[in-house]
Amino acid sequence: MSIAKGLEGVVIDTSEICKIDGNAGQLIYRGYDIRDLASSLSFEEVAYLLWNGNLPNQSQLKEFSSRLVQQRAIPSKLITAIRNLPTSSNTLDVLRTGISILGAGMPLKKPDMDDAIAIAAKIPTITAAFDRIRKGQEPIDPREDLNHAANYLYMLTGQEADPVKVSALDKYLILLADHGMNSSTFTARVVASTWSDTYSAVVAAICALKGPLHGGAPAPVLKMLQDIGTPDRAEKWLRDELNAGRRLMGFGHRVYRTTDPRAEILREIAQKTAPKSLTELAGKVEETAIRILQEYRKARRLYTNVEFYSAVVMHSVGLPADLFTATFAASRSIGWTANILEQMANNRLIRPVTEYTGPLNRKVVPINAR
Amino acid sequence: MSIAKGLEGVVIDTSEICKIDGNAGQLIYRGYDIRDLASSLSFEEVAYLLWNGNLPNQSQLKEFSSRLVQQRAIPSKLITAIRNLPTSSNTLDVLRTGISILGAGMPLKKPDMDDAIAIAAKIPTITAAFDRIRKGQEPIDPREDLNHAANYLYMLTGQEADPVKVSALDKYLILLADHGMNSSTFTARVVASTWSDTYSAVVAAICALKGPLHGGAPAPVLKMLQDIGTPDRAEKWLRDELNAGRRLMGFGHRVYRTTDPRAEILREIAQKTAPKSLTELAGKVEETAIRILQEYRKARRLYTNVEFYSAVVMHSVGLPADLFTATFAASRSIGWTANILEQMANNRLIRPVTEYTGPLNRKVVPINAR
Repeated sequence: MSIAKGLEGVVIDTSEICKIDGNAGQLIYRGYDIRDLASSLSFEEVAYLLWNGNLPNQSQLKEFSSRLVQQRAIPSKLITAIRNLPTSSNTLDVLRTGISILGAGMPLKKPDMDDAIAIAAKIPTITAAFDRIRKGQEPIDPREDLNHAANYLYMLTGQEADPVKVSALDKYLILLADHGMNSSTFTARVVASTWSDTYSAVVAAICALKGPLHGGAPAPVLKMLQDIGTPDRAEKWLRDELNAGRRLMGFGHRVYRTTDPRAEILREIAQKTAPKSLTELAGKVEETAIRILQEYRKARRLYTNVEFYSAVVMHSVGLPADLFTATFAASRSIGWTANILEQMANNRLIRPVTEYTGPLNRKVVPINAR
Repeated sequence: MSIAKGLEGVVIDTSEICKIDGNAGQLIYRGYDIRDLASSLSFEEVAYLLWNGNLPNQSQLKEFSSRLVQQRAIPSKLITAIRNLPTSSNTLDVLRTGISILGAGMPLKKPDMDDAIAIAAKIPTITAAFDRIRKGQEPIDPREDLNHAANYLYMLTGQEADPVKVSALDKYLILLADHGMNSSTFTARVVASTWSDTYSAVVAAICALKGPLHGGAPAPVLKMLQDIGTPDRAEKWLRDELNAGRRLMGFGHRVYRTTDPRAEILREIAQKTAPKSLTELAGKVEETAIRILQEYRKARRLYTNVEFYSAVVMHSVGLPADLFTATFAASRSIGWTANILEQMANNRLIRPVTEYTGPLNRKVVPINAR
């Protein structure tokens, strides 16, 4: 019996949401290349596309954006609950708890678009409320006249952000919104397959996104860049890490065998938003890391993944490093819910098996004979 | 490319925890047959076995039981949080939120036995606190002199339960403690594989257990028995359900091709604890349902699954129907955490793929041209 450890390459279902061509370095949402989506559309249009399968016309977009805006506010009981969490909480623990509280008391029903909109709309609100509360500030109510990205930055600071930063965040939110059967989206599908509810499926996805091998990578990337400090120190720092047996964050991906297209787009965005000193440092670290990794792992070339320039872009739009993964969740919640809806349209309980390799035929002996 | 929808029969890893022989109707924990474990051991001994791989000797059991007891109490902040949830909440929503709150502020670290004990010890405490709060009663502190099953029943009522009921619940907790790659345990492994923390992995497992196709089945089984009312009404009621295209809860399982051994043991336990009217009704419904299901589904015989007599046993020990799944969680939390620890001993990120079947080569047109 062959063992599909990590389920690498195992096809769990068909999907009409997202296509990844790991060899060509191509990412497609609903038939559209990610480069086209990021260059010409808004996050709201792409969320509509992922959920509905087609781009909205003007009246559809207006109605849809309005529904999202109406769902941004969170109840005061949830703000109280956030105040009662330790200020040292990982932001993903806060999101996990917050979405769980929102789902408590909801009737158990088949996942629908209302759930998807209600959850996706509130992730930035919960994140911003926690960030302010832990700093001793009052949470700021969402604004109805700002788009998703602009409102998120506004709720963090109380000030309207520079349009260049809003645009950079908007594109980040588009680029990360879906990515096939990544571990968190897969988790959401497994949970939905039991006929559990949308809130539970999203909470579970948040649990998976927290892991450093999945959504937890961008903050360590920023820390790496800050530790290195200047381009001339890159080679020694990176070699020291690899010689100590540690893993470099921001390189390599299960699916891509070439540069991740999202990394390329984020690199371009970083050129526009980040200080020159940071982009030069990032460029030097990227080039050096790929060269050195090639030395250490002769067999397979590792490429820059999406986390590397995600870190640079999120830092340059003003997000603190420990909100990076929550911001990833704000984006990926679109993909999670699109996949939950698709799972339920043609469901089969997801339940694999393991091969038992433990002892057999053991007899229970009385405790005083053990 | 073949599609493993539902991952039926897909072997995701080796495991030394649990072996299910679906054809022989055999369930083995760490080399011991479930019949031997349920007939001669306590829940505490079996939890130790599942976590450690071997049965404890007297001093190991004493130390281990003491660790479990010490971890039962929940902080007052968590009780406040439970008070703030709607009294109409599904008990699994409360457990999901409660474990999430307990995990908030914990450092991100590799899952360990301390986590496993801390979480498993508190699931009955959270469940009982919620049950009392929603009834307008004060939560009852855990007692240190009672075993896991007895203390759970005590925290629900404030009175020591009949030893026959304690023993029945103790055996239920043994029987449900692990079952291979069921959806919730698999979810826990997927989350752990990202290097997320134990609390997140258990929260995600709770999310999956909530689903009616997984842990949500026993309450509907009890409702079915109550709706049927008397044995003579069984045949008509069951035929009406099937003719209406509804699914009968309590029959059939992905893995077993014969009677689930847990169902047989629970049937024997029910004989000792449930009123004769209920066991006679259950026996008639079981026999009739299997006969009728055979008529409706010629190809494959369906057998009684664990949920059917779980419902009878849990009802007979005095648990309200909407605590059945939380009680299942109290038991299965042992298997979840044993599997999380095993996953981390030899981890590989669990990340499958989907096959894209949507449109291709679409071009973005301006919004006013859509």
